[in-house]
Amino acid sequence: MNQPIPHPSLLKRQLPETFVSALAARFGDRFHTTEAMRLHHGRDESAFDPMLPDAVVFAHSTGEVAEIVALCSEHDVPVIPYGTGSSLEGHLLAIRGGLSVDVSEMNRVIAVNAEDLTATVQAGVTRKQLNVEIKDTGLFFPIDPGADASLGGMAATRASGTNAVRYGTMRENVVSLTVVTADGKVVRTARRARKSSAGYDLTRIFVGSEGTLGIITEVTVKLYPQPEAISAAVCNFATVDDAVRCVIQTIQMGVPVARVEFLDAAFVKAVNVHSKLALHESPLLLFEFHGSEASVKEQAELVQEIAKDHDGREFTWATHPEDRSKLWTARHNAYFAGLQVKPGTRAITTDVCVPISRLAESIATTVADCERSPHIPSLILGHVGDGNYHVMLLVDPAHPDEFAEAEGINHRLVSRAIRMDGTCTGEHGVGLHKMPFLVEEHGEDALDLMRALKRAFDPKNIMNPGKIVALERG
Amino acid sequence: MNQPIPHPSLLKRQLPETFVSALAARFGDRFHTTEAMRLHHGRDESAFDPMLPDAVVFAHSTGEVAEIVALCSEHDVPVIPYGTGSSLEGHLLAIRGGLSVDVSEMNRVIAVNAEDLTATVQAGVTRKQLNVEIKDTGLFFPIDPGADASLGGMAATRASGTNAVRYGTMRENVVSLTVVTADGKVVRTARRARKSSAGYDLTRIFVGSEGTLGIITEVTVKLYPQPEAISAAVCNFATVDDAVRCVIQTIQMGVPVARVEFLDAAFVKAVNVHSKLALHESPLLLFEFHGSEASVKEQAELVQEIAKDHDGREFTWATHPEDRSKLWTARHNAYFAGLQVKPGTRAITTDVCVPISRLAESIATTVADCERSPHIPSLILGHVGDGNYHVMLLVDPAHPDEFAEAEGINHRLVSRAIRMDGTCTGEHGVGLHKMPFLVEEHGEDALDLMRALKRAFDPKNIMNPGKIVALERG
Repeated sequence: MNQPIPHPSLLKRQLPETFVSALAARFGDRFHTTEAMRLHHGRDESAFDPMLPDAVVFAHSTGEVAEIVALCSEHDVPVIPYGTGSSLEGHLLAIRGGLSVDVSEMNRVIAVNAEDLTATVQAGVTRKQLNVEIKDTGLFFPIDPGADASLGGMAATRASGTNAVRYGTMRENVVSLTVVTADGKVVRTARRARKSSAGYDLTRIFVGSEGTLGIITEVTVKLYPQPEAISAAVCNFATVDDAVRCVIQTIQMGVPVARVEFLDAAFVKAVNVHSKLALHESPLLLFEFHGSEASVKEQAELVQEIAKDHDGREFTWATHPEDRSKLWTARHNAYFAGLQVKPGTRAITTDVCVPISRLAESIATTVADCERSPHIPSLILGHVGDGNYHVMLLVDPAHPDEFAEAEGINHRLVSRAIRMDGTCTGEHGVGLHKMPFLVEEHGEDALDLMRALKRAFDPKNIMNPGKIVALERG
Repeated sequence: MNQPIPHPSLLKRQLPETFVSALAARFGDRFHTTEAMRLHHGRDESAFDPMLPDAVVFAHSTGEVAEIVALCSEHDVPVIPYGTGSSLEGHLLAIRGGLSVDVSEMNRVIAVNAEDLTATVQAGVTRKQLNVEIKDTGLFFPIDPGADASLGGMAATRASGTNAVRYGTMRENVVSLTVVTADGKVVRTARRARKSSAGYDLTRIFVGSEGTLGIITEVTVKLYPQPEAISAAVCNFATVDDAVRCVIQTIQMGVPVARVEFLDAAFVKAVNVHSKLALHESPLLLFEFHGSEASVKEQAELVQEIAKDHDGREFTWATHPEDRSKLWTARHNAYFAGLQVKPGTRAITTDVCVPISRLAESIATTVADCERSPHIPSLILGHVGDGNYHVMLLVDPAHPDEFAEAEGINHRLVSRAIRMDGTCTGEHGVGLHKMPFLVEEHGEDALDLMRALKRAFDPKNIMNPGKIVALERG
C-alpha cells in the first residue's frame, strides 16, 4: 500500500559494532539478526508492507529490558517493544530500523490479589492466559480486543473491545505499570490503591503511548467477580438506524449490558458462511448480560421491550455456555470471515468512535460512501454501546489503486467523525496509519503538547521513533 | 502550623507596573488588589496560614483566561486558578505571590447532551448547580466530594468522594477538558467520544495537575441515568475489623453498592450531636443502593446477609427521600461535626488509600498510634469501598507543638500506607501538604518524569509554581 514513510527498507542497516557484540555477549541465542526473525518482528496485522528491525532480542525481565534500553540510549539505536504482533495500524514497523525487544517470553503472572481484585503480570502475558490462570479465584479480566493480545501491548494501545460498554477500556482498568524509561531507568507509575491524587497520572501517560515514551514491562490490572449468571441473545432489525436507536435507549435507561455488538447484513452473511451459523441476514445486535439470575432476567426483559419499540425481531437466546461460546467465537472470527468474502484481498479496517447520538448518521453516510465503490466489498461491525465501529474494506493487491480508494473512504469517514466530535481511533491506536488525522482531530496546539511530552520523556527520540506524532509541525 | 515554605508572606510584592495597568485597563472592576480580596484568595480549607496573591482577577471566558495567562507569561508572573476555595492541602496558596484567576463567575452549563450522557460546563460550575440544571433530563452527575466544589477544581485535584466505589473518580468521569496552556494557548484535550486511542492522554495529564500545567476552563463530564430506585441503610458493628471485612466481601461478590461509608464510634458520636441523630455509637457503615426496584432489594438482602456474617447489628433503613437526605446531609457535615468535638481547634485531615485487603490493618495501627496522643482528639471516616479513609486530628492553635505531633501521626500513617502499596492521598491531592511524601511514594526516578512533564508544559514555571513536585531533586 501507499507508504507514508519515505524510506521503507528491507535492507539491514549498520548497527554499531560494539552495540551488537555487547548484546550478543549478554543475551546469546536470545539475540537474533536473521532475516526470518527480523521479518517476523517487522510487520503487524495492518496492510502495511513490512519494515524490518536490524536485530531482535528476547527479554526475560524488567532488569534485562532496562539493560537493553540503556545500551540503545548509549548508541542512539531505535528500540521497539514487541508483544504478540497483533497491532493493526503499523505500530511496530521499524521505520528507522533499530532493535525489536520481544517481551513474549515475559509471560509470568506475578501476583493475584483476589481480595483487592487486582492481578500483576509481566507484559507478555496474554489476556486469555491471565483468565485461565485466575479461573479458580472466581474473578476474571474482561477487556477483550478480539485478538489474544499481550497485556503490555493492550496497555500500550489503550485497547478495549466488546466488553468496554460495561467494564471500560485499558484506560480505566490499568491500576499501575512498571516501565523502563528512555534512559534505561525502572519506574513504577502508581501504587496498587484503587484511586490516588498523588501527582501527575504517569499510568495514564503510558497507557496508549505505543512504546514511544518507554517500554511497559509489568501491568497491574483490575479484576472483576465472575458474574453469577450470563446470557446472550441476538436480535435482528429492519434497518441500521433501528438497531442503533435500540442501543441508545438501552444505554440511556442505564441497563448495564455487558456487551452489545452490531453487525451489518454483509457481516452477518460472512459470519454465517465462515462459522456455519444461520443468523438472519439483516442488521443485527448481539447482546450479553451479566449479573445475578434475577438481574440478568430483568435486563433481558427490558432490552427486549426496547427492541420491540424499534421493530426488532424476536430475540434468539444462547443461554447454554457452548451456544454462547459459539456465538462469540463467530463474532471474534468476524475479521477472518470478512477476509473470505473475496479471497486474496487485504483488509483496511477503520476505527472511528463518535458520540452515540451521531452513530446512526455516521454509519448511514459511510454506507452511502462505500456504495460508490461497489468493487471494494465493505462490511461493518461495531461496539455500538461506545459509538465505536469498524468498516472492513477489502482491497485487491493486484489493483493498487484500490488501496488509495479505500483510504479515501477512510479519510472521509474520519473527517465526518471528527466533525461529529468523534475520534479517528476508538481502540486500535495511531501507529503509522492514523498519524495524518491527528492534526484534524486535536489541532496543532494540542499536538505541540504531545510533542513536548515526547521530547521530555525521550529526548534522543529512540523509543519507537516516528509513531503517533511527528516531532515538528508538518 | 509548621510551614514547609521558607518565605510565606502577607506583604504585597511588586508586580510589574505595565502588567498591573494592562490588567486594570482590560478588566476594570474585575481586577482587585485589596487585601481583603487577596486574603480571600490566599487560603483554602487546609490548616496552613494564608499566603496571599498580589492581585485577583475574575475571568468570564476561556478567551479571557488565555489573555490573562499570556500576560502573566510575558511578565513572568505566577498564576493560580481559583474555583470555590474548598481545596484541603494548600493547593491555592500563593507561595510566590502572583495573580489569582478566579473562575467562579464562569458558571454556565454550556451543553447537555442527554443522548450521549455528557455535559459540558464552564470550570466554575459547581456539582450541585450542574445537578439542579440537568434534573429534568433524568440524568445526574454522581461525583460528590462533600464540598460543593467547582467542576474545574474537582478535575484539577482528581476528586472523588462517597460515590466513587460505583461511579469512579474524576479520572474516569472527565471526557474532555478545555485548557489554557502556560503560553496562553487554548487546547481541547479530547473529543466527546466515550473512548479514544488517538495519541497521548492529554485529558488525564491535566486531571489532577492542580493548576501546575495549565488552567482548566471547561469540563465535559459523564452523566448517568437517575436510578429508578434508591435506598439507604446504616449498620453498626462491634469492631472496625468486622465492618471492613463486611465491605471487602461485598465488593468481592460484585454487589454494585453506590456508596459505602465508614464512621468510627467517635465520629458517630460527633454526628449525633451535630445533626441531632440517634445512631448507635459504634463502628458504622452507611450504605446506599442504586438500581431497579428489584435490583436494589436484591443488593440490600445480599449485603444484610454479609453483614450478619460479620456480627453486624440489624440494618436501619432510610427509604424515604427525606430520611435519606437527612442521613447523607449528616455524613456531609461530618467535618463540621468533628470540629465541634473540641471547639476552637483546627483540623489536620489525612487521606491515605490502601489496597482494601490491608484496610483493617491500616486503620487498626492508626488507631493505636492516635491513642498515644489522647490530648489530640482523632476521628475516622472513610470511603471504605475504595480503601480510602480520613483521620481528622483536632489540634489546638494555642499549643503549636500539637501541629507537629499531629503531623507525626500523619507521617507515620502515610509511611505505613505506602509500605502497604497505598498512596498518601486518595482524593485530596498534593498541594503543599503532601509534597514531602511523594518521593517515598513514587521514588526519585518517577518524580523525574513528573519534573520533565512540568518543565515541558510550563518552561517558565509560572503555573501554580511550587506545588506537587519540586523542580529539583531534594
